[in-house]
Amino acid sequence: MIIRRLESASSDFRSALDALLAWEAVSDASLQQTVDEIIRRVRTDGDEALLAYSVRFDRLSATSIRDLVLSPEQLEAAYDGLPAAEKNALNVAVDRIRRYHEHQKASSWQYEEADGTRLGQQVTPLDRVGIYVPGGKASYPSSVLMNAIPARVAGVAEIIMCVPTPGGETNNLVLAAAWLAGVTHVFTVGGAQAVAAMAYGTASVPRVDKIVGPGNSFVATAKRQVFGQVGIDMIAGPSEILVYCDGKTPADWIAMDLFSQAEHDEMAQSILISEDASFLDAVEASLTKLLPTLEREVIARTSLAGRGALIHVQNREEALDLINHIAPEHLELSVEDPAALLPRIRHAGAIFMGRFTPEALGDYCAGPNHVLPTSGTARFSSPLGVYDFQKRSSLIYCSASGASELAKVASVLARGESLTAHARSAEYRILDREA
Amino acid sequence: MIIRRLESASSDFRSALDALLAWEAVSDASLQQTVDEIIRRVRTDGDEALLAYSVRFDRLSATSIRDLVLSPEQLEAAYDGLPAAEKNALNVAVDRIRRYHEHQKASSWQYEEADGTRLGQQVTPLDRVGIYVPGGKASYPSSVLMNAIPARVAGVAEIIMCVPTPGGETNNLVLAAAWLAGVTHVFTVGGAQAVAAMAYGTASVPRVDKIVGPGNSFVATAKRQVFGQVGIDMIAGPSEILVYCDGKTPADWIAMDLFSQAEHDEMAQSILISEDASFLDAVEASLTKLLPTLEREVIARTSLAGRGALIHVQNREEALDLINHIAPEHLELSVEDPAALLPRIRHAGAIFMGRFTPEALGDYCAGPNHVLPTSGTARFSSPLGVYDFQKRSSLIYCSASGASELAKVASVLARGESLTAHARSAEYRILDREA
Repeated sequence: MIIRRLESASSDFRSALDALLAWEAVSDASLQQTVDEIIRRVRTDGDEALLAYSVRFDRLSATSIRDLVLSPEQLEAAYDGLPAAEKNALNVAVDRIRRYHEHQKASSWQYEEADGTRLGQQVTPLDRVGIYVPGGKASYPSSVLMNAIPARVAGVAEIIMCVPTPGGETNNLVLAAAWLAGVTHVFTVGGAQAVAAMAYGTASVPRVDKIVGPGNSFVATAKRQVFGQVGIDMIAGPSEILVYCDGKTPADWIAMDLFSQAEHDEMAQSILISEDASFLDAVEASLTKLLPTLEREVIARTSLAGRGALIHVQNREEALDLINHIAPEHLELSVEDPAALLPRIRHAGAIFMGRFTPEALGDYCAGPNHVLPTSGTARFSSPLGVYDFQKRSSLIYCSASGASELAKVASVLARGESLTAHARSAEYRILDREA
Repeated sequence: MIIRRLESASSDFRSALDALLAWEAVSDASLQQTVDEIIRRVRTDGDEALLAYSVRFDRLSATSIRDLVLSPEQLEAAYDGLPAAEKNALNVAVDRIRRYHEHQKASSWQYEEADGTRLGQQVTPLDRVGIYVPGGKASYPSSVLMNAIPARVAGVAEIIMCVPTPGGETNNLVLAAAWLAGVTHVFTVGGAQAVAAMAYGTASVPRVDKIVGPGNSFVATAKRQVFGQVGIDMIAGPSEILVYCDGKTPADWIAMDLFSQAEHDEMAQSILISEDASFLDAVEASLTKLLPTLEREVIARTSLAGRGALIHVQNREEALDLINHIAPEHLELSVEDPAALLPRIRHAGAIFMGRFTPEALGDYCAGPNHVLPTSGTARFSSPLGVYDFQKRSSLIYCSASGASELAKVASVLARGESLTAHARSAEYRILDREA
């Protein structure tokens, strides 16, 4: 069996589905302890600790923290050295991602009340953001673009990137992406030590206000640990796709869409829902036929067998229920009129609409962000966006007469809470009050 | 000395200031273990565990989970029983808070490109939210309003409130506030067990998508622990105010504004900045004079002595630098033209402008939220708002010709990342491609 088949009509369907969806980050006590120690040492010894860890974990021959800094010139040279097709593709992606994210920019607002009281909200960018980029095989230029561009659009002045270079090997596409996306500082450090350096600052690495970007379990544990000292994005689980197809898209296309998720890693999840049982048969045949042609066949095979599913539903209502229950990271609506379904979809990270919109286009260059809530967290969270790099300050200006009326209300409520200094602070602003 | 005095011109000023500002949540291993065990038991035993913990920790005589449910009728009765002044004050507060938060509501958007490709963002409310309300003395009706109203404005259909009732004592103002704010379910359970019940659901307590609201160290630890399973708001540190005054507001007013923060708890922080040294003398005299008149004198005295400060600066530039360095939860600009300073203020939770806008008005009824980022986290986070109860889904619809062009770009980038199933999934959508 290349992939399991589930029937929505069967009595154990929901429990089988929920078992398939279940995923929980393992919190390993010894990992936690290692990470705590790394953070502690970087806080205490700064650059010295950073250098020592990088030499040890990434097998570098660096002798000074300066060996772990990449200059803007080095980034530009990486870009200049790329083949024209890659340069062009990166530029198209940067332009489209920037254009989409410009729509997310929030503005300050104010309104005035009859008595002259003004209320509002001031929107400002974060000062400085840190982007973690994994090293080695999982070092993705698209990830640099998707994390850095929203920060730039938000108006963040300084973007610090940390990317480990195991064995000293750099990835030119990653450096070129950093250069195009407006990253201001690059350090070739990784792991929990990179997260600690960005969260607390060292003599060389500036302290940031928020850390974003994917990473291995050391990075994820460190991010969770420094949460509060700095902001962090979501701790991501394995990537997943849910395809809903009416059976009229070529089976090979849908099979490859499922593979594009399954090739990520063994825990990635690819699920197809359809009312058309014979279409599910056709997709299964395509999967079987195409699997041996994949470069990452072994990973995809493990992912499909362990976490994939073809689900036969009775009707569209059931499909919509399932979509909202799963709250997928990526939802592909491979149907005739996908827009008609939108009002019924309550939870999804990104919605890919129609037969010509595979997830892969969104992963790279359609414009929207590819950093999306995984493992059902689309129930309560959003794609990474400009809003993650802006924050708001409430604005309250009371006119003398406005303050006087509000103070009477505040006084009653504060006294109801036994906070009498609150009440008295308000009461000083009551006009013509008795002394 | 009732409060310390700092001089910005002195050589050790920055280190003295940073020592004063320093605050870090203690993560206590035995507390963590207790909380882990409570969460584990609630996940396993559900209502039974919830009942057992409530009987034990809150000294309740409940014998069934039904004894821990408050009906809408009970909430309404609590409201009906209030004195008219309290009813009126609550209603004014609800109306003003709702009106302000309506301005925060985000809408879905879409745009179309020349080739018919459409991109956008769909905004939807969370399905179900949990609000934690502390019991006993720290049980604040204003907190119910500030947490529940933004959720209602966002369109959240179900709002679950958990409020412990130590010794069985309920707080009518809290219940009335819940009724007015549109809370749909109330359970008289508290602590880590309430957080666990809302995060994972029990037979009686529905599983929520996000948990907000303040709580003691058990609640904060539990919230941190369930983060990822559900969304949470920020883990709050002690409350703080930073007042910047030009010396022309009555000293007694400013003193009481500082007290309104200091009376919260011993760790609360009240800081005043001024260029006018004689005004700082006058405020110190007012503090000394008024302190013995406070109901919560002991708390306020400890807070001022331990964490308060009057800071003399040389000029307005220094004051603005300090404000942005501190990134205060509450910033009071008690000056002639506060609006002129706004463009220079990069980080603050809420900005109270002018001599007639003490923090207390914002705490209760001005309209903006009183749940604000503490301990310098205004560098990267925002007041609680409607945006915390809405989430976004990216929308991507590619026309056939749009997909064809994007697929060429995605193909290059995906192959650059060695993700060839991604590339092939995109390439299927290239028009007139060679087979």
